[in-house]
Amino acid sequence: MYRSLENLIGQLSLLPGIGRRSALRIALKLLRSDLRQIEELSEAILEFREKMRFCSNCGGLAEEEELCSICQDRQRDASLLCVVEEAGDIFAIERTGEFSGYYHVLMGALSPLDGIGPEELRIDELLKKLEREKEKISELFLATNPTLEGDATASYLQEHMQHSHLRITRISHGIPTGSSIEFAEQGALARSIRGRTEL
Amino acid sequence: MYRSLENLIGQLSLLPGIGRRSALRIALKLLRSDLRQIEELSEAILEFREKMRFCSNCGGLAEEEELCSICQDRQRDASLLCVVEEAGDIFAIERTGEFSGYYHVLMGALSPLDGIGPEELRIDELLKKLEREKEKISELFLATNPTLEGDATASYLQEHMQHSHLRITRISHGIPTGSSIEFAEQGALARSIRGRTEL
Repeated sequence: MYRSLENLIGQLSLLPGIGRRSALRIALKLLRSDLRQIEELSEAILEFREKMRFCSNCGGLAEEEELCSICQDRQRDASLLCVVEEAGDIFAIERTGEFSGYYHVLMGALSPLDGIGPEELRIDELLKKLEREKEKISELFLATNPTLEGDATASYLQEHMQHSHLRITRISHGIPTGSSIEFAEQGALARSIRGRTEL
Repeated sequence: MYRSLENLIGQLSLLPGIGRRSALRIALKLLRSDLRQIEELSEAILEFREKMRFCSNCGGLAEEEELCSICQDRQRDASLLCVVEEAGDIFAIERTGEFSGYYHVLMGALSPLDGIGPEELRIDELLKKLEREKEKISELFLATNPTLEGDATASYLQEHMQHSHLRITRISHGIPTGSSIEFAEQGALARSIRGRTEL
């Protein structure tokens, strides 16, 4: 195998969802594209890296500002806080139009086998936020994925909150157990937000 | 949706096998990577583009030279020429160790619905090569994919060669070796009945 091809395949394989075979197909496509297209891709990556950041409040995506557009929106329902694993989950939930509160992104889920404990997630930030805004927040809506890790994370948070005044809800399992929120079919996701259950 | 995110998702979606959702996951991963990793990816793409090219003889991949390492290898069997759709197919066939001849990459397959006719493929180059090396080449091995398009391409080439002295072979295909007839995919089973071979 050629060195520069091997190197590119190695780099592309680090990205989620790309294996060695799809990396090879992408490499061939890049070789066939004209140089302007390559530059456009390269500029898109650099501009994205330069302009986007994680919102300093919720951990979602923000563009050229400290806070994301949702955290900046004072019209939303401050009594509702939705906890998700990844920033991408926010887009999926927003598309349903079923949730009007604010978000908190954990940036992952508990997974002891992968060495991901509470300290690796934004759980400390969540607890501080709940303490700081305890007059405002009345419902903590746990929308971690209905997977082993997501369920464990929800249970962990629930145990930590059990003596609080908070109403704690969990996204209902209308979406198939084992799947991810980000890729859920929109209608099923909407139903499981409406049907969220008391924990 | 944020502009620089939307732009990056658009660019990534142009690559084979990447849809909008996987593009979003890749974007989040890039945002979380440190800048050095991004630079390494970017450099890998540019170096690949700079060093790799399509071999001027076979259309496979070559690094920093006009000819690929296979076309440069004078030890191979010049009487055998294998026709494939894509440069990536060469790597797969080489890994088997079953083929010792040279290659010719068509860069696609006939697909009238997608506007891909003989002129869009490297068929003219193939015919010229066969004419130029007719003293050497005795077998033309058609290893296009066993799909509608790959089969059509193989048939097209076979018709064009029918008055030549060449032995024309096709990669054997049918239901996967080691699988069972009972569980074979119906279309694949039908094709392997129609395409049954003499013993």
